[in-house]
Amino acid sequence: LVLSTRKQNLRHYFEEGAKFHGHLSPGLVIGIFMVDLAEEILGSPGLVDAVVETQLCLPDVVQIMTPCSYGNGWLRVKDWGKFALTLYDKERRDGVRVYLDMEKVKNYPRIYQWYMRENGGVETGQVVSEIMGAERAILSWERVRVKVTPKEKGPVSICPVCGETHPASNGELCPRCSGRDDYYRVINGEITPG
Amino acid sequence: LVLSTRKQNLRHYFEEGAKFHGHLSPGLVIGIFMVDLAEEILGSPGLVDAVVETQLCLPDVVQIMTPCSYGNGWLRVKDWGKFALTLYDKERRDGVRVYLDMEKVKNYPRIYQWYMRENGGVETGQVVSEIMGAERAILSWERVRVKVTPKEKGPVSICPVCGETHPASNGELCPRCSGRDDYYRVINGEITPG
Repeated sequence: LVLSTRKQNLRHYFEEGAKFHGHLSPGLVIGIFMVDLAEEILGSPGLVDAVVETQLCLPDVVQIMTPCSYGNGWLRVKDWGKFALTLYDKERRDGVRVYLDMEKVKNYPRIYQWYMRENGGVETGQVVSEIMGAERAILSWERVRVKVTPKEKGPVSICPVCGETHPASNGELCPRCSGRDDYYRVINGEITPG
Repeated sequence: LVLSTRKQNLRHYFEEGAKFHGHLSPGLVIGIFMVDLAEEILGSPGLVDAVVETQLCLPDVVQIMTPCSYGNGWLRVKDWGKFALTLYDKERRDGVRVYLDMEKVKNYPRIYQWYMRENGGVETGQVVSEIMGAERAILSWERVRVKVTPKEKGPVSICPVCGETHPASNGELCPRCSGRDDYYRVINGEITPG
């Protein structure tokens, strides 16, 4: 009964999450239980900031369940590949870190197989069902103090090659024109192959 | 008349954006005109992926206007500090890159002053008004072909220090336990200062 009350309370997020993320992935469902747990432990603090430790799924959970978004800077994403997140009081910087606890996941063979990518994977619907049954039983948490290095908004430069603006801290050339990083080439006027 | 029709069509996104981002920032408003322009030039392709070239504001615009989210991987974020974004056909990999064109912005003193962070800044409401008047007149675009390096989901390891999982490609220790990156310390049992 208690369990089903929790899922009932979170139903809105399962729906919102599926819409925002494109589908209700196992990671999304675990994440919703994680944020819910973190918020319960935090109580009612002031403004809350968030850190997630993987680029997969968890950023979307935080964005639908809290005011933190990637673009407003209240959500930070670490590319650590760890299924963990921290919500913390922006002012006091103490908070709660919740993580998927593999010792506990061992009791749930489908979740374990899915997460560890064993035996060629398992059907997603079955994993989601097992997560819905497990709820918080696969999670652990700890209290943490968060270190913050505020991002300075420094002066803006114009790149002499492309003519576009970028932070002067990059140096004279922008990250693309300096060859440090790239993701496209311009095909203006070229015929697009079918 | 044409201009006000465009803003009318985008009104939903101004409202959604303000809600998702916390407030209607100048960057959000410019971004909404950028995505709208990119979508118009793209026409009706198949699935669309997105790249934004700054962590500020633009990730939120893409997330509210398209099915691309940070957590589903269809939105990639480059930390270049450039106010530009690309929408492209996932299959064919050709698309449209739209950027804030500083040559054009020079005709709009408040936008210019805000973006270049000159003279101690300008009142945000005035910047937003000028952007609402400018619409696409401060933007330029080009056709691009996007390079994609698909992320492999490799095997998962358990870190011998913290006992948590992480991608085996990190090495034996996870990114935090190896000292490569960090953002918190555990304060379980410590008394929280007021």
